Amino acid sequence: MSGVPAVPFDTDPSRYRHLRLETDGEIARIVLAVDEAAGLRPGYELKLNSYDLGVDIELADAVQRLRFEHPQVRAVVITGGLDKVFCAGANIRMLAQSEHWWKVNFCKFTNETRAAIEDATEHSGQTYLAAVNGTAAGGGYELALACDQIILVDDGSTAVSMPEVPLLAVLPGTGGLTRLVDKRHVRKDLADVVATRSEGVRGATAQAWRLVDEVAPPSRFADTVREAALAAAARSRRLPGGTGVRLPPLARQGSDDAISYPNVTADLDRAAGKVTITVRGPRDEAPADAEGMHELGASFWPLAMCRELDDLILWLRTNEVELGTWVVRTSGDAAAVTRHEQLIEATAGEDWLAGEIRHFLKRTLKRLDVTSRSLIALIEPGSCFTGPLLELALACDRQYMLDGLPEDGDEAGGPAAIMLTAGNFAAYPMANGLSRLATRCYGEPARLAKLEQETGRPIEAAEALELGLVTFAPDDLDWDDEVRIALEERASLSPDALTGMEANLRFPGPETMETKIFARLTAWQNWIFTRPNAAGPDGALRRYGTGQRAEFDRKRA
Amino acid sequence: MSGVPAVPFDTDPSRYRHLRLETDGEIARIVLAVDEAAGLRPGYELKLNSYDLGVDIELADAVQRLRFEHPQVRAVVITGGLDKVFCAGANIRMLAQSEHWWKVNFCKFTNETRAAIEDATEHSGQTYLAAVNGTAAGGGYELALACDQIILVDDGSTAVSMPEVPLLAVLPGTGGLTRLVDKRHVRKDLADVVATRSEGVRGATAQAWRLVDEVAPPSRFADTVREAALAAAARSRRLPGGTGVRLPPLARQGSDDAISYPNVTADLDRAAGKVTITVRGPRDEAPADAEGMHELGASFWPLAMCRELDDLILWLRTNEVELGTWVVRTSGDAAAVTRHEQLIEATAGEDWLAGEIRHFLKRTLKRLDVTSRSLIALIEPGSCFTGPLLELALACDRQYMLDGLPEDGDEAGGPAAIMLTAGNFAAYPMANGLSRLATRCYGEPARLAKLEQETGRPIEAAEALELGLVTFAPDDLDWDDEVRIALEERASLSPDALTGMEANLRFPGPETMETKIFARLTAWQNWIFTRPNAAGPDGALRRYGTGQRAEFDRKRA
Repeated sequence: MSGVPAVPFDTDPSRYRHLRLETDGEIARIVLAVDEAAGLRPGYELKLNSYDLGVDIELADAVQRLRFEHPQVRAVVITGGLDKVFCAGANIRMLAQSEHWWKVNFCKFTNETRAAIEDATEHSGQTYLAAVNGTAAGGGYELALACDQIILVDDGSTAVSMPEVPLLAVLPGTGGLTRLVDKRHVRKDLADVVATRSEGVRGATAQAWRLVDEVAPPSRFADTVREAALAAAARSRRLPGGTGVRLPPLARQGSDDAISYPNVTADLDRAAGKVTITVRGPRDEAPADAEGMHELGASFWPLAMCRELDDLILWLRTNEVELGTWVVRTSGDAAAVTRHEQLIEATAGEDWLAGEIRHFLKRTLKRLDVTSRSLIALIEPGSCFTGPLLELALACDRQYMLDGLPEDGDEAGGPAAIMLTAGNFAAYPMANGLSRLATRCYGEPARLAKLEQETGRPIEAAEALELGLVTFAPDDLDWDDEVRIALEERASLSPDALTGMEANLRFPGPETMETKIFARLTAWQNWIFTRPNAAGPDGALRRYGTGQRAEFDRKRA
Repeated sequence: MSGVPAVPFDTDPSRYRHLRLETDGEIARIVLAVDEAAGLRPGYELKLNSYDLGVDIELADAVQRLRFEHPQVRAVVITGGLDKVFCAGANIRMLAQSEHWWKVNFCKFTNETRAAIEDATEHSGQTYLAAVNGTAAGGGYELALACDQIILVDDGSTAVSMPEVPLLAVLPGTGGLTRLVDKRHVRKDLADVVATRSEGVRGATAQAWRLVDEVAPPSRFADTVREAALAAAARSRRLPGGTGVRLPPLARQGSDDAISYPNVTADLDRAAGKVTITVRGPRDEAPADAEGMHELGASFWPLAMCRELDDLILWLRTNEVELGTWVVRTSGDAAAVTRHEQLIEATAGEDWLAGEIRHFLKRTLKRLDVTSRSLIALIEPGSCFTGPLLELALACDRQYMLDGLPEDGDEAGGPAAIMLTAGNFAAYPMANGLSRLATRCYGEPARLAKLEQETGRPIEAAEALELGLVTFAPDDLDWDDEVRIALEERASLSPDALTGMEANLRFPGPETMETKIFARLTAWQNWIFTRPNAAGPDGALRRYGTGQRAEFDRKRA
């Protein structure tokens, strides 16, 4: 995007402007104290702990570092660092001035961060608690909803609220509506009242309606929070042992037509509207045991590769919005990939680091699933699509696999092959709760069972096609043309129609709270974001704070 | 809507312009032969069996009449009555010229009709088969997808296709994307190919990809269809016995501020943007047995009331789009309502008519659930909210119940009471597969179990509030103000934000193919319908057929 400064997603606590990360034994605190003057883009002030993408990048970083750098932490308290303010939600002026794609992308990232908080609670034994010390409005209350427990100060004035519909004519779109009814089991008619009452709900009523778990007067608030955090820590199933793994700065190098990291590169083709992402397999042999993995720390290939891929996905989503197709390739030694995965799989049940890497791979792959880009895997000789890297291919909308060897190619490595591992059936569930293979075989358990029998051996193109693991398997004569035409066709289609189509095809089968948030709730919010009643010059989002009431087209669609 | 002729939804075969309904013993045929010149609105020609709302109203009527008027029918073949044309889908010029709310409302009705086809197959023993005798494009193929079996003529040219994304920059939005992967278990990468390939898929490939169930050459096509229909009829679990129940024209009377039927009235308050719907309980005692029900036929109160309510919902949705709040009331004898329901419940397992009425009530209540209007129930003395009418209240976003008697009211009938019946727990599942009570108690099985113990007795306001059956229970002193303020507040909110909010709060819990279609797929389609890439002056929908290519903003949102 020429003219607009690129947004980096990597940060660390020494650079935080908006929050403090404090640890004290088993308890950590994330204290929101947003710097009003440090918005990511010009044009708005981050008052009352309201947030923009820059704030959320710090929050996501803190959640991630707690899992890797602070393995002793077993409960995390999120609270507000301003007097009588927890968090006022997404900054309204920021939303009002943002382009549609920015709003949508911003909401996606914040939703992923909320999901990461729930993932840490469920899978890392780091239970999040919201200590709502003051105003929790809109996205502020939604942040609390992502926590396992919500403790509200009962001071006669502090309320939790969802003022989006009455004040802004948009939805509480960071999972709020879904979490009220599906997670907290708030009765749906009461949820309706909450979501239309701008002043929110206080104290005992908030507790009776299940909007919060506990209330405490100001004099007891700190103690109540501490007791709840200690109790959560005591219940935690966090695996013990070992010191943290420091996550050093990423070695990202960028030019106008490439972004590269040690294990991941992206070639940008602006004319064709596409990015070719290549993930490299490990250069070194896998360590023999968990101890070796800890010694390598952030340079252990699966962790290093995953950090780079995660960063690249976020970078491209925000900074390269006109590159609508991502071509996904791998190169390297498949056997080395599987040996790294085997070490993780063998130790994930007893070693916290192995567990964290597994879940991080899962979360990064989930980011791909909800990325609004067409994803095309090219499986060629020299690639290493197996284990976590096979998941990359399975996350794609289509898979093209070269059958045989290129006429003029290097034949040393033999034809392209993919390999299924045990991990492909269990380690990286999608948001729908199913593995990508189970999703691919949705409704066809016999096909899935057959695939399980094919684990652990190279599968070449003709067989992969027969097994339904790839979409097309052209030979060398057709490969170039068939791939080129597919990419050109894709690039010619409407970006919006593709986004909607992909969002509907990528998640067959069961739905979960997570798929509801990323698909149903997000789609409605996206729609509302395009409607004049919210985003038009006389709409509520634009008129908020001007003293003028919004003017609505009253037609119900 | 002043200036626009109102659209009536009631018709009958003698008035059909676009299709023929033929019955021959156990087999019926719905033959699409759309009259090009008989579009519902001016400005387009219904070529190639393309459809508009007027065509779909006839289709919905045919599906309904087959269930009630032709109980002997056990299989229904849908086919095209034009040479080498099955159905070309929704008319593109009609879509291109339509207002946003019209497109959304049109798609909702067509989706309900497709769901009614699946409901007839699953619950009425009337199995639908699509005999695809020629072009089945877009909504045409989606109509086939709603059938239980698809038989495709294999003539070397006929294809099933979804050209919406490549040609029109919108989605196959009548359930197509969802039904491909969730119903027919088409592999998602193949579904991606289908949905981006404008020319579609023919013959053996269509069968191999599971897009159709069977192919037959032209010489064998008619026989293959007949054999499949006879086999489906032989498997049908249609309950035997009795002649059909004729559905006579509805006695709808309308003026500018009221619509009335014998059992249902609607008072329109344009200044306040609201409609007050009052459903009257039975005037007569329930018949003693199924025989008596058959004798009454369409005048049997549950059937008569349901037909009127269904018609009113459709009328208001299409013809009164600025009336954003529906207030739902009932009046009459609750005991008479329950006795009618008991007769249905007692005989639904053995009498086809009772079963059909039960499912019709279910479908009409489902229409309410997906209606983009705020629904507020007012429960007052003299009302009869029990059984199917209690479902009306539970379908609402909120329930207000008057506690005690109005100071100046008629005390003869005593204070307002509601009553739970067995039917409320099982007879009228929502699209999410749960009863409205189970949805209301989602995640709280103990609350639901407690409600089951309260079946069969009047429950007054204070207890209803305690049991979580109503939202608020003001007494006479507060009632008028509280209701007035609630309705005024509702009317002041953004129609779009309310639609999105209600769509997210009304369906806690599990998702089904049906909820995916009405929420996820529809929300994405609504979004795309607002985007310039589809609906703008240079968008694909507007430029289709002009020879000019659409111009796309390439930013991915």
